[in-house]
Amino acid sequence: MKKVLKGFFVIEGLDGAGTTTQLKLICKTMQDAGIKVFSTFEPTDSEIGCLIKRILKGETKATPLALAYLYAADRENHLHDPNNGILAHLQAKDIVISDRYFFSSLAYQTISSPYAKVEALNMDFPYPEAVIFIDTPVTECIKRIDSRGDTKEIFEKLSVLENVKSNYETAFSQMPSEVILHRLDGKLSREELQKEIMAVVFDKKL
Amino acid sequence: MKKVLKGFFVIEGLDGAGTTTQLKLICKTMQDAGIKVFSTFEPTDSEIGCLIKRILKGETKATPLALAYLYAADRENHLHDPNNGILAHLQAKDIVISDRYFFSSLAYQTISSPYAKVEALNMDFPYPEAVIFIDTPVTECIKRIDSRGDTKEIFEKLSVLENVKSNYETAFSQMPSEVILHRLDGKLSREELQKEIMAVVFDKKL
Repeated sequence: MKKVLKGFFVIEGLDGAGTTTQLKLICKTMQDAGIKVFSTFEPTDSEIGCLIKRILKGETKATPLALAYLYAADRENHLHDPNNGILAHLQAKDIVISDRYFFSSLAYQTISSPYAKVEALNMDFPYPEAVIFIDTPVTECIKRIDSRGDTKEIFEKLSVLENVKSNYETAFSQMPSEVILHRLDGKLSREELQKEIMAVVFDKKL
Repeated sequence: MKKVLKGFFVIEGLDGAGTTTQLKLICKTMQDAGIKVFSTFEPTDSEIGCLIKRILKGETKATPLALAYLYAADRENHLHDPNNGILAHLQAKDIVISDRYFFSSLAYQTISSPYAKVEALNMDFPYPEAVIFIDTPVTECIKRIDSRGDTKEIFEKLSVLENVKSNYETAFSQMPSEVILHRLDGKLSREELQKEIMAVVFDKKL
């Protein structure tokens, strides 16, 4: 049975769902309220994370399964880095909120690699206390990605995102009951979403 | 049960045992004899392999287990790269000889990470037809490493190399009987060693 890390929250969603924007908003509000929060993300900004981003952009190549191993390498380091890792921050009593975690690997890397293999690579990583899933329709995500105008990452195509969504559901259906899944409506406005996310995190904290 | 790849040979040994030198010599001789040979090595010269080398030299940091994941990522890509991977070369009827393979992970990464975990990461990688182990006393390896005069990698200390040697023995003791272990005396001269290695590879080929 995997460990559950109290004080650790994860925001997940399809590309374009707004996980990054929401994390920024919520962390600012929490810091303004004097709460110690460590805001983080995957792939991280370590050298491993940067290599992953170059592969996603097609700037360098690796097999899909090698990419899944790289995500696990980055995550292992993200958790256990003695100076700035998730566990170190939790020990210092910070609230930790990550934009993506192993659920993203189970949703995305399983498009090109066997689900069981990706699951095995992520088997030892502990669960967060709660997962906040910004549930946005695939067509809406594609519209937002298109409006960004930057180089499309390899995972940003319609049929692919539909598969990703279905893989997310598989991953969530296998979570133990003590990990809470908060499914939020991705069509809400930025501000409404923020309120809902704050309620999730504050509910546990206050 | 893991697959065994016919035509695939691996040279292993402690740092300083001369695996790299021997591979160069043997490949030159084979090419001169008109044999199609793909000479390769791990960590590879892919971006993943280069990142591993920077970590080994202390130029960038990662947890020991993240390093084990990186080796597995590099290996997966080394095997399955569609253009220059081990499997692609075997399919083209090349003899493939690699300076290090997953036995090195089982020997080295298990110094700082649990053996079972490193083993699990490497579980799906196929066996070579034969492993050529250049068996050099630890003290002799240290002498050779010292004489190189370059920055010592983190695995190059005496007590560490003794553990590495013992981990190699564990890995070899678990190989299935169809994978042949050729244990060569690392105190032989360069030329004598080369002759012995040639005998191993040619014996299968001619």
